[in-house]
Order: sequence, then structure tokens, then C-alpha cells
Amino acid sequence: LDYQHVQVPFEITLWIMLASLAKIGFHLYNKLPSVVPESCLLIFVGLIMGGIIYGLNDKSPPVMDSDIFFLYLLPPIVLDAGYFMPSRPFFENIGTILLYAVVGTIWNVFGIGFSLYGICQVKAFRLQDVSLLHNLLFGSLIAAVDPVAVLAVFEEIHVNEKLHILVFGESLLNDAVTVVLYKLFRSFCEMPAIKSVDVFAGVGKFFVVGLGGVLVGLTFGLTAAFTTRFTKDIRVIEPLFVFLYSYLSYLTAEMFHLSGIVAIIACAMGMKRYVEANISLKSHTTVKYFMKMWSSVSDTLIFIFLGVSTIGENHEWNWPYICFTVIFCLIWRALGVLVLTFFVNRFHVNTITSKDQFIIAYGGLRGAICFSLVFLLPDFRRKKLFIAATTVVILFTVFIQGTTIRPLVDLLAVKRKRESAPTVGEQIHIRFLDHLLAGIEDISGHWGQYYWKDKLEYFNSKYLQKILLREYDQPKSSIVLLYEKLERKHAIELAEAGQLGHAPSHPTLLRSGFLCSNNRIVVTDKKLEDALNPDVLENIQEILARNLYRIRRTGPAYNRHTLPGETEPVEHAKEILILRHKGL
Amino acid sequence: LDYQHVQVPFEITLWIMLASLAKIGFHLYNKLPSVVPESCLLIFVGLIMGGIIYGLNDKSPPVMDSDIFFLYLLPPIVLDAGYFMPSRPFFENIGTILLYAVVGTIWNVFGIGFSLYGICQVKAFRLQDVSLLHNLLFGSLIAAVDPVAVLAVFEEIHVNEKLHILVFGESLLNDAVTVVLYKLFRSFCEMPAIKSVDVFAGVGKFFVVGLGGVLVGLTFGLTAAFTTRFTKDIRVIEPLFVFLYSYLSYLTAEMFHLSGIVAIIACAMGMKRYVEANISLKSHTTVKYFMKMWSSVSDTLIFIFLGVSTIGENHEWNWPYICFTVIFCLIWRALGVLVLTFFVNRFHVNTITSKDQFIIAYGGLRGAICFSLVFLLPDFRRKKLFIAATTVVILFTVFIQGTTIRPLVDLLAVKRKRESAPTVGEQIHIRFLDHLLAGIEDISGHWGQYYWKDKLEYFNSKYLQKILLREYDQPKSSIVLLYEKLERKHAIELAEAGQLGHAPSHPTLLRSGFLCSNNRIVVTDKKLEDALNPDVLENIQEILARNLYRIRRTGPAYNRHTLPGETEPVEHAKEILILRHKGL
Repeated sequence: LDYQHVQVPFEITLWIMLASLAKIGFHLYNKLPSVVPESCLLIFVGLIMGGIIYGLNDKSPPVMDSDIFFLYLLPPIVLDAGYFMPSRPFFENIGTILLYAVVGTIWNVFGIGFSLYGICQVKAFRLQDVSLLHNLLFGSLIAAVDPVAVLAVFEEIHVNEKLHILVFGESLLNDAVTVVLYKLFRSFCEMPAIKSVDVFAGVGKFFVVGLGGVLVGLTFGLTAAFTTRFTKDIRVIEPLFVFLYSYLSYLTAEMFHLSGIVAIIACAMGMKRYVEANISLKSHTTVKYFMKMWSSVSDTLIFIFLGVSTIGENHEWNWPYICFTVIFCLIWRALGVLVLTFFVNRFHVNTITSKDQFIIAYGGLRGAICFSLVFLLPDFRRKKLFIAATTVVILFTVFIQGTTIRPLVDLLAVKRKRESAPTVGEQIHIRFLDHLLAGIEDISGHWGQYYWKDKLEYFNSKYLQKILLREYDQPKSSIVLLYEKLERKHAIELAEAGQLGHAPSHPTLLRSGFLCSNNRIVVTDKKLEDALNPDVLENIQEILARNLYRIRRTGPAYNRHTLPGETEPVEHAKEILILRHKGL
Repeated sequence: LDYQHVQVPFEITLWIMLASLAKIGFHLYNKLPSVVPESCLLIFVGLIMGGIIYGLNDKSPPVMDSDIFFLYLLPPIVLDAGYFMPSRPFFENIGTILLYAVVGTIWNVFGIGFSLYGICQVKAFRLQDVSLLHNLLFGSLIAAVDPVAVLAVFEEIHVNEKLHILVFGESLLNDAVTVVLYKLFRSFCEMPAIKSVDVFAGVGKFFVVGLGGVLVGLTFGLTAAFTTRFTKDIRVIEPLFVFLYSYLSYLTAEMFHLSGIVAIIACAMGMKRYVEANISLKSHTTVKYFMKMWSSVSDTLIFIFLGVSTIGENHEWNWPYICFTVIFCLIWRALGVLVLTFFVNRFHVNTITSKDQFIIAYGGLRGAICFSLVFLLPDFRRKKLFIAATTVVILFTVFIQGTTIRPLVDLLAVKRKRESAPTVGEQIHIRFLDHLLAGIEDISGHWGQYYWKDKLEYFNSKYLQKILLREYDQPKSSIVLLYEKLERKHAIELAEAGQLGHAPSHPTLLRSGFLCSNNRIVVTDKKLEDALNPDVLENIQEILARNLYRIRRTGPAYNRHTLPGETEPVEHAKEILILRHKGL
């Protein structure tokens, strides 16, 4: 037995397997996931695993490595989030989201930091040695809402799109603020004296970190789009580029101390429309599927590891400090949302209702990012207290808030997401209004979002598309694209329902000839049906009718670099067109 | 700049990116890949990269780590090979393949080992210190035909199916022999004296390694199939299980010193039919696509690394030994094929022609497996000589044999692979003959392959399918399955060619009403067509006709754990059936 040799990949595979099996297990009992969010169940599995490891080894189970978390587990989730981000509501509410993410997070950091410093002054709690700077450092890591936890809970409760994007967008974009404040306070902790220059440098750094992330992300995203222009002959590696470039954008941003999360989101949103146009349908299915799969596994692993890492002896249980941390997290978030929303509502027609405000405040879940950051703290006396407080805050928000938010949403009758997507009619009207508003803004000289959107669209179709898209003739209208997509879906459904049998298969029969010949077939059937089992007959008839035309193309010659049936449809479409022309 | 922190994933990503871009680069110039096999080009890229690294650092570039090769690069390629293995020709020729793989490889090992030992006795070459055991050890690593190299070349030349499976199957299954002989000679080298018991233990070990690999693989494969029974509610992680279980089978086999390659092939072939029946169509596309993508990247990386590792100062250039190694590799392979084929042809009606024999002998390419094994050798005086000889043999076979095999195949007019797949008619006849032969074998009491195949099929449908398949009612005939597949493909093609517009969309119109109503539509069209642009009219008509029925299902509510459009088709099919019944 040579376990040493295969240990690393074997254990990684086993952890992923455990995560996947846990997921299957929950979904076998349909009632469970509808009551308790999956994240809670996974943490619970983690707690049990941790307990078993602790019981067997009699020492603390391994803690989730911060490097593993930030380098391998977080990127797939953020990539998935960025790639499937509904861009319209995101950009419509970008101002509000940024306000929550930047001002709200800073508000929370300082609020929690200063209030906890106040608590530390109470002599009965024996916490006088925790300095203000340490409290602020702790505040900077505990204040940030966690995208992984938010996603896990909010995707199950289906609140309306605007509410979802507000909480989710905030959780993604506050990364830049968290990175800056955390690193700032950490370096302050190690400095002998703090000058006012350092504070200003910190403020400047925030813009560098955020905008730098966007820049890195967009650069890689557009490069990815450009690369997929040239993959026509080698379809099989197309999906790879989506993953490689977005991961590179994340790593590059991290390397330069920029916000990796912001970079990967900018990359994913930047490349999406061009990549989708360039790559084949199957490649696109693979990209989407694999992204979902990967992020799903990643967040399962994160929650399990959260549970595992909770068990052990890393904690200092100073309950007053811990309890006040939870309370201050709740209070300052609620206050922050109230105050910021007050300002937001003054400038918007479409206001955020008080119900929505409550859900935004209540949905501020903390998760694995805080957890990884607290372990990355430099060693000092009270680190274990901070770890304990962070663990309790995470468990409180995920378990208590995570399980009660669904009943609360029901109770408050918060506006839900509409079940069906907008109809074509609605979509036409939305587009029409966009054009109209862009025109109005242009005439009135107001540089609003519609004006900029229109300019961007113009720039896109005039320059970007020509560089980044493979077959650039004319921009296909989104309605035509939607129509093609629906057609394809419908065709598959028809085929699966066995309806296609009645579609004329030989194209020359289509226009006129088909009707007569089909009539004749129907008549002949009538006589035969008495003699034969009708089901069998239908089967035979279908097979004969269709295979006459198509059977010589059952499969192309096998080649490693092309997938079967990859180049066929185009040729076939041409053939159909030629036959059609002859028929006319 | 914090490069240290992200170094590992960053460099891995960059290598993969380089490999992918190299692949794109070759395919941009269409003529290049048709003359030179891709493997040669990639080694060439690797040589240039290695030269650059050597020139810049003035020290040998990093050598491909054997662990990385065996644990991370080889499994995807073998999985891809096993999953897409054409099982019928494989099992039809399993006897011949095993004879080549086992007896042929042993023949080559001893032939090359003893002849090289003879060369070492020539005093002029100054090689007297290379013992017989070392020569045999070298023979054991240089004798084995490499699946990666064979795949890369043979998939581009499209020889007939039998010839392909003979060379390819041999290259896969000889792994068990190589593992045993290599480890045996290695341990003999370290032993003070060799007893005859050890030799017999070696022979016994071969069966353990090979059959153990099959057993481990099948166990994991069937477990994978069983697991996918329960993934109906969580489609998104289905593809994961295919990869996880096959990788686990490989690692487990390696852990117990069994043949990992044989295990992963058994796993892939064992799970394929059940997994395909259980998972959704999209999951299956993802599995296929990702497997192809992964193996494609892996073999690109392997060839690039081969090139990089060639540059440097790891070599001892004793040209007589090196040249004789190349010559003996060629001679012993040719002799082996001739002798073994002579015996094979005596027992088969369908003989292997002399042209085929030549291609089998000529197609015995060596590759990265030898290369990794030679670096795994324990350090001794002449290791660098072995490394040099291995490098030259690999480069010779890949470059000289790899580039000339295509012209030779053309010149000899070797029977090519038929371009089109068998028609339904042919498939029916093949199945019919299978049944007939199974019956004849049963009656005559001959336990031939058809008899066993029939028994296995019976066992499969009576027990295995009931345990492993989700919806087990009745085994769907393969013709019905093929028909469904063709239908689906046809439907997509129709939709893409815009032909679906003429298919009746409202199901109640289908049976009788449709013909009349369609007649009327055609008539009405005639009048309208004069007034309106016919293309526009057709578009409007199509959009109206189809969207009436389908538009309310544009997209389901977004949920993280299901992909859009996953559960829809079933409901839709039901709806269609209900409407149909009403219409009758």
C-alpha cells in the first residue's frame, strides 16, 4: 500500500465526493431543503465531521486554509455569480449598490469597531487590553456581507429582482472596501505611529483597488473574447478559455493587491456577450454547466469546512464580547440601511419600501470570507477571541437569520420574483422605451444612464464587435437571437415528445407536394391500421419516412479534436437550402 | 507585488494557456496539421521554450515531474480513451490485443534487454559496466508502446477500425505488463541475489496487477452508475461523479500498486451505458465535452513538457548504445508483430494482412510514459545514458515514424476507416446476426464470444439495469435509442435551418385539422405575398404561430441548483399529450 504517493489528489477527491454525496442526500428528502437552507445543513455535516475527527484524534481538526479558500474555492463561486449576473438590474441599481457597498461597509466597520471598543472599556468584562485599532481591524473583517452565504440563502427564497441584486451586488462589491480597510488596519497595527498621510493614502488606495480590479478584469475579459475568435477549428478547447482568463484575472488582481472579486466579476461580465457569440452551442452548454457545477461544489466545500473548522480549541469564549459583537452587527447594519436608503429614496422615483429595507438589513449574512480573514490575522494575544466571535457571528447569521428569512419573507409578503420571464411583447416595449429615453436624455442634455448605455452600445457595435466577434456582419437583434433560442428549445421538446414525426422531413415535399402526399399516406394508413397494431405501424412509418433522408449522416468520421456532429449542421443546412431552391 | 502568494495556480494556468494558444496557433494555418502531426509541433514548441529557459537561466530547464505526469496529466487522457472506446471492435479483438499487449511486450522487453546487453559486451563502446539487469530494466521501460503518442498520431490518419483498435488497445493494456516488469527489475536491481521464487512471484503478480485493476475499475464504475440514479433533483453535479469516480479508481489502483490505466479504462467502460441513461442530455454533453477538452489539454501539456525536458544537461551521449537502442526497438517490434500475427492468423478467418502488420509494427510509438519512468529510476552511474537513449527513441518515433506514417498509409493503400457510420439497416442486420450466432453457439455447445455476450446482456437486463438505472421499466431497444438521438439532432438542425416553421406547432391541429387549416393558410399566403415582402411575412407568420403557444414559458424562475430549462421538457411533453388526447 502506497498511500503517501497519492495522498493529495486522493484526499481532495474524497472531500469533493463527500460534498457531492451530501448534496444528493439532502435532495433525496424533498422536504428538508424547503425548510432549512442547504448552507445550514452543510455546516451541520461539517460540525459532525469535525466532531468525529476531534473525537478520533483528540486534537483540533484541520482548519480551512485561507490560501485554499481564496485561491481555489472562492474564484469559481464569484465567476459563476459574475457570469450569470442579471446585467440590466445590476447596472440600473449600480449607484445604490455602490452606496451600500462602500459607504455602508465603512459605516459598519467604524460603527462596530468603535462600539466594541466602548464595550472593552467596561472593567467587568476584562477586555481592557484590546486596543481601538484591534477592534477596528476586527470590525473591518466582520462588517462585510458575504457573497457565498447571501447567494446560498437568497437563491432559495426568490425575492424580487431588485431586492436580490441590492443585497447580492453589495456583497460582491464590498470586497474592495474590505480588502483596503483590513490591510490598512493590519499595517496600522504593526506601525509604531500613524500619520495622517497614511489615512489619506488609505482612502486613495480604495479607488486604486476597486477601479484597478475592474480594469484588470475587463482587460482579461476582452482578451478572452478576442481569443475565442480563433477557435473555430478547435471547438473542444473553447470552454477552457473562459475559465483560464477569468482565473488569471483573479490571480493577477490578487498579485497586485487589487480586489480579485471585483476583477473576476468585471472579466465575466465583460466577456460574456462576445464569448457567447463566438463559441459553439455545445461549448456554451459546457461552460454554463461546468460553472454551475464548480461553484456548487465550491460552496458545498466551503460550508462543510466552515463546520469542520468550528470544532476545536481555537476559541476564547469571552461571552460578553461575543454577544455584543452579534448585537452590534445587527444594529449597525439596520441603522446603515435605514440611513442610506433614506438618501437613496430621495433621489429615486422607484423607492425601496420599508419591507425591502428590512430584508436588506436582515439578509446581511456573514460567511467564509470573514472566517478566512480572521485566521489570516497576525498572531496576538486576543486572536482566539476574535476567532470565537467571528465563528458565532457566522453561525448566528447563517442558522438563525438564514432559516427565518424565508418565513419572514412570506409573513411580510415581500414582493416576489415574477415566475415567468418577460414575454416578447414586453421585451420589445422595454427596448423601445430604452431608445426613447436615450433620445429624451440626449435632447434635454441630461447625461443619464440611458444616454450612456446608448453611447456604450454604439461604441460596442461600431468598434468592439468588429474586433472581438468572429462573424461580424450586422448586429443580430436580441429579439432574433431570442427567437432562435426558443426555436431550438422547441425543436428539442417536440422531438422528445415525439411530435416531430409529423413534421415534413424531406424539404422538397415541404411547400406544395407534401400536403397531397401526406394525404395519401393518411389514407393508406387507414387501411393498414386495421391489419396492424397502430403503435407498431406508426413506429415503422416514422422510422422509414425520416431515415430515408437522414440516415447517411448517422455520424461523421471520428476525430479527437472535434466532437461528433460539430460541423455537420452547417453543411446540412446548406443542403436543405439547395434542395429548397430546386423545389421552388 | 505579491507573486509568491499566487505562484502555483498562476504558473499552472499560464502553462495551460500556453498549451491552448499553441493549439489554436497550429489550427490557424490549415495546411500545417495535415503534414506534420500535432504532437511533433508541440514537442517543437517545447524545445523552443526549453531553449529559451536554458538560455536565460544557463541551467537545465525543469524536467516534467513524474508524479505530476502520472497523477494529473495521464488520467484525463486515459479516461477519455476508455470512455470513447469503441467497445464492439475492442471486445471482438480482445484476444489479439491481449496477445500483443502481454506476450508482445514481454518479447520486446527481453529482446531489447538481451541484445543491448550483447552490445555492452563490445569493448570499443566502453559500456561493460552496464549489467544485464540494468539492460532489462531499460528494456522494460522502453518496450511499451505509449497510448498518448499512438492516439495523437492514429486519430489523424483514420486507418480502419480493426487496425486502430489493435495498436491502441495494445498501448493501453500493456501498462499492466510494463508496471510489473519495471517494478520487478527495479527491485531485482536492489536485491543482493535473485531467487527463482521471486521470478514466479513476478509472473503471478502480473495477473494480480491486471485483473486487480479491472476489478477496482469495475467496482468504481458500477458505484458511479448507482450514484447517478439519485441525482435527478440536482442535475448540476451529475457530470462531477463521472470524473470523481474514475479518478478515484485510478488513484486507488495506483495506491495498491495495480495498473491505474487498466482500472480507469474498466471504470469508464463499465459506467458509460448506465451513466448515459441516468443523466440528463445537457449533463452528458458536458461530460463528453469536458473529457475531450481535458484530455486535449493534457496531451498538449505532455508533448510540450517532453520538448522542454529534452533540453539540458541530463544526458550522456554514448551514440553506439543510443543508435542500437533505436534499431533494436524497431527490429524486435517488427519480429514480434510478425510472429504473433502468424499465430493469430492461424486461428482467425478474418486475418491481419501484411500491410496491416507493417502499420502495427511501424505504429509502435514511444512517448511520455517511458520518459517519466526513466526519470523515476534509482540513481546509478548510467542513468543519464538511459535518459539520453529514451529521449532519442521518443523523438525518433514521434518525429520520423509519426510524420511518415501518413504517407506510408497512403502509399500502401491501407484500408481506411469507412467515412459514414453503419446505416440503421446494417445495424439491424448486425444485431440479428449476433442473436443468430449466439443461438448457434448455444446449440452447438461452443462457448464463443457471442454466447458470452448474450449471457452478459441477459445478466445486465435482468439484474444490473434494475439496480443501476433510474427509470427501469423495459430495456429500450438500441434502435429506438438511436432513433430518438437522430430525432433530437434532426430537430436542432431543422430549427437552425429555419425549417421548423412549417411544422405544426399547436398539437391539436396535428392529426386531421392541420391539413385543412394549413391548406387555407397557404391560400391566404398567396394573396398576402403579393402585398408584402415574402421574407418579412414569413417571419411574422412564424413568430406569431409559434409564440402563441410557447411564449409563456420563456424561462423558469432562476435557481442556483438547476439549470434553466431542465425540468421543463417533461411537463411540456405531458401538456402536449393531454392536448392531443382532447383533440382526438
